[in-house]
Amino acid sequence: MARERQHDSRALSRPQALSRRSLLGGAAAAAGAVTLTGTAAGTASAATTRDVDVAVVGGGLAGLTTARDLVAAGKTVAVLEARDRVGGRVVNLSLAGGGFTEGGGEFIGPTQDRIKALADSLGVATFTTYNTGKNLLYKDGTRTPYATDGILGSVPPVDAAGLANAAIVQASLDDMAKQVPVDAPWTAAKAAEWDKQTFESWLNANAVIPSAKFLLDVATTSIFSAQPRELSLLFVLFYIAAAGNESTAGTLERLTDTANGAQESRFVGGSQQVPIKLAATLGDRVVLSAPVRSIAQSGGKYVVTADGVTVTAKKVVVAVPPPMAARITYDPLLPASRDQLSQRLPMGSIGKAIAVYDTPFWRTDGLNGQVVSDSGVVRSTFDNSPPDASYGALMGFIEADEMRAYDASSVAEVKAAVLKDYANYFGDKAKSPTSFVLQRWNNEGFSRGGPVAYAPPGVLTEYGAALRAPVGGIHWAGTETSTYWNGYMDGAVRSGERVAKEVLAEL
Amino acid sequence: MARERQHDSRALSRPQALSRRSLLGGAAAAAGAVTLTGTAAGTASAATTRDVDVAVVGGGLAGLTTARDLVAAGKTVAVLEARDRVGGRVVNLSLAGGGFTEGGGEFIGPTQDRIKALADSLGVATFTTYNTGKNLLYKDGTRTPYATDGILGSVPPVDAAGLANAAIVQASLDDMAKQVPVDAPWTAAKAAEWDKQTFESWLNANAVIPSAKFLLDVATTSIFSAQPRELSLLFVLFYIAAAGNESTAGTLERLTDTANGAQESRFVGGSQQVPIKLAATLGDRVVLSAPVRSIAQSGGKYVVTADGVTVTAKKVVVAVPPPMAARITYDPLLPASRDQLSQRLPMGSIGKAIAVYDTPFWRTDGLNGQVVSDSGVVRSTFDNSPPDASYGALMGFIEADEMRAYDASSVAEVKAAVLKDYANYFGDKAKSPTSFVLQRWNNEGFSRGGPVAYAPPGVLTEYGAALRAPVGGIHWAGTETSTYWNGYMDGAVRSGERVAKEVLAEL
Repeated sequence: MARERQHDSRALSRPQALSRRSLLGGAAAAAGAVTLTGTAAGTASAATTRDVDVAVVGGGLAGLTTARDLVAAGKTVAVLEARDRVGGRVVNLSLAGGGFTEGGGEFIGPTQDRIKALADSLGVATFTTYNTGKNLLYKDGTRTPYATDGILGSVPPVDAAGLANAAIVQASLDDMAKQVPVDAPWTAAKAAEWDKQTFESWLNANAVIPSAKFLLDVATTSIFSAQPRELSLLFVLFYIAAAGNESTAGTLERLTDTANGAQESRFVGGSQQVPIKLAATLGDRVVLSAPVRSIAQSGGKYVVTADGVTVTAKKVVVAVPPPMAARITYDPLLPASRDQLSQRLPMGSIGKAIAVYDTPFWRTDGLNGQVVSDSGVVRSTFDNSPPDASYGALMGFIEADEMRAYDASSVAEVKAAVLKDYANYFGDKAKSPTSFVLQRWNNEGFSRGGPVAYAPPGVLTEYGAALRAPVGGIHWAGTETSTYWNGYMDGAVRSGERVAKEVLAEL
Repeated sequence: MARERQHDSRALSRPQALSRRSLLGGAAAAAGAVTLTGTAAGTASAATTRDVDVAVVGGGLAGLTTARDLVAAGKTVAVLEARDRVGGRVVNLSLAGGGFTEGGGEFIGPTQDRIKALADSLGVATFTTYNTGKNLLYKDGTRTPYATDGILGSVPPVDAAGLANAAIVQASLDDMAKQVPVDAPWTAAKAAEWDKQTFESWLNANAVIPSAKFLLDVATTSIFSAQPRELSLLFVLFYIAAAGNESTAGTLERLTDTANGAQESRFVGGSQQVPIKLAATLGDRVVLSAPVRSIAQSGGKYVVTADGVTVTAKKVVVAVPPPMAARITYDPLLPASRDQLSQRLPMGSIGKAIAVYDTPFWRTDGLNGQVVSDSGVVRSTFDNSPPDASYGALMGFIEADEMRAYDASSVAEVKAAVLKDYANYFGDKAKSPTSFVLQRWNNEGFSRGGPVAYAPPGVLTEYGAALRAPVGGIHWAGTETSTYWNGYMDGAVRSGERVAKEVLAEL
């Protein structure tokens, strides 16, 4: 089992926290990674109790944003975080040879206004994702560079029929998405029709040219870390609709693109700087290594029991993914609608493999480091080098079927498979990284997948209304509850801002 | 919240069991039901510890059968049952006016050899489900009795085109099911094709006559307590294939039929007599009111921590449905394949509504009490009277969309809706039962749905192999793991017999 426990594998209650711990802890114990230090926060000691206005379950961007807004309104708050670091699905991993890389969410793009505002407020700057030079298409064992600076050039150079078919499919999806209200997808006029089929069934009927199907498949696994057969068509349309904001309609292209899309920019210092700095403003309101086991009503209050700390509160905000929220014991029981919802929103399957080199050598070959591939364990990559390019980093996503195939493999096995792919894409130099970091979210005890919980057919229409519906004094946050940028850091921040308003209206 | 807590709503740890309790306890506290007494078993007292060869999690038919076989082989066993009764999804509920009814699994039919052998060994007899007289079709507000004793008569009298279409669909499903190996559905030649679509998509293409689609929809919700849009076609085919035994191929008809089908017979004294008598043979090896919270490896053993009792064991058998097993904390973590499987097998949505009358008056009207309906909260019914017909009982299933619509309703609201249906089907006499019992499995804290966990598209092909794969010394039982009669009492017994052999081979 040891090989599945690289990061944050704590599963059981061990009241830790006998001393102050860093915000980044064992989480960075990956192959090639060492522990980063961060701003210290509070930690639970055995038998600690706190009494606050609001207990927040989960110290990711959603929970921390919730706490920020509640504290600003004068409320007392305790944030209970299961891991020994903040950030949830956003984590910096330091490299053995110096520097760091990002193991979770890292990109920010246009219309992601709320994560941008948060980062700005904390002094975390952004820089443009490296996007100079040509993309690579790797298909049928052949490597084809292609330009990204023209309209036609922005799509991988498959056959003309496939390009035309893919363009029609993309336009159809955007049109259908416009008919899906982001705050209630189940009320779309065609919700029943769209929620009764898999995205795969729809693609089979519409992406009829094989190369078009290939492009849509890569887009799907890159966005959802799930295969088209796992997803409800309605959920895919909702997710596209959510890739915008109150004044800009979502589009598929905004999800997939680097320039002008969701991968446009990155954070200086790494994305986890945002939750780390946000947590620092909250001080010892944030309790680490405190996985919540139960939420019980008692004497007009809620008793939130975590390993090593018990918090009594007037309200509770649960800011963890639905399948993780289901593992908390509730008394009284949650309504069936909420419990059965949480049985029906599984996490996608995702890993990130980062290979580090002395230089970003692909740049001198005129490549931007971005690949779209039809084979290998890594089928999409990015140049993850730091802004000063003091070293080079290739980051590859391991998605869905590919991740599942390697869930139980050793790091060495995954590394070998990944470097073989990188060599196919970028040449033999890629075979010899100075360090290699693997982050497998499926094996993380407090995530068990990523980047987001998705909906199979039939779930949104029957259970969607339970996503944000409070249960007594228990409110729900987390990127899965967001109407915009669901599944992204921006959605997490939006959910925290929404739920804080909800709770404040009741306090 | 009180209205969701009729039965067994304990969610949180309260080490109860300060005294011996009956095998049937608060579970029968339904509207119109009072507590039945049963054979006493052991119960946990605070801080109890036990050391055994095998800890069994769950005192339903699967866990109890496991324990029986292990004890017969000379092993020491502890069965930890969360509820204050044994039987899991099998429960007798006593009636205020005397007598009892069955709130969970109750039927037994041909090829269900293992539950039959178990019942025989315990002296629990069966009797034939009342099936004399005509069935009723209630469609478009019209009530049509129809005979069930001829080949054509066994199908509700919809239009001829619909009957012909339904017959072709049924034959196709049976043929496809024959290509699905029950022990590895994911290895079927067409597994990928069948697992990438919902059953609804397949029905839309094949059950093209509206009345045929109606018949298939009713069959689907009756069998799975899920709508066709929620189910993988491959899972449906597996489930049909599993409706047989080692020498008899499964068929759709065996799932749906009363005579010669899965609803053929019932147990004298109620189905829970089987687990109650089985538990009695195990004595104080069975611990009630002991929900298991964690399973941890420590010092070469497993430490199984339940409310009020901790058991150390060489091996652990988890005999609860996958979504419930996911709520236990494991240390070390389960492999991703197993954890993500348990995120992807939700429980169906089911309730049973039993109205009791002085006599089974529908019999004198020449009706057998069985209805197939296209409207109402109850769309299929059975005559659930005792074998001596000393009173009459109409049992109706509330399935899938209908159950979800009433999850949060009061018992009075459900009762009113059910009796309106029963009056439509059986006349005004049905409006005045002497008692009424409602069992809503979605609201049960230790089931959260029923009768079985089902697979949406993409799950069996990617995760099916994890269903029975042991994880170290942790083995998996429960009807969801059975190759035959998956979802039925027979499957639960088979799973216990299989897992006991598995464990014994290793001890």
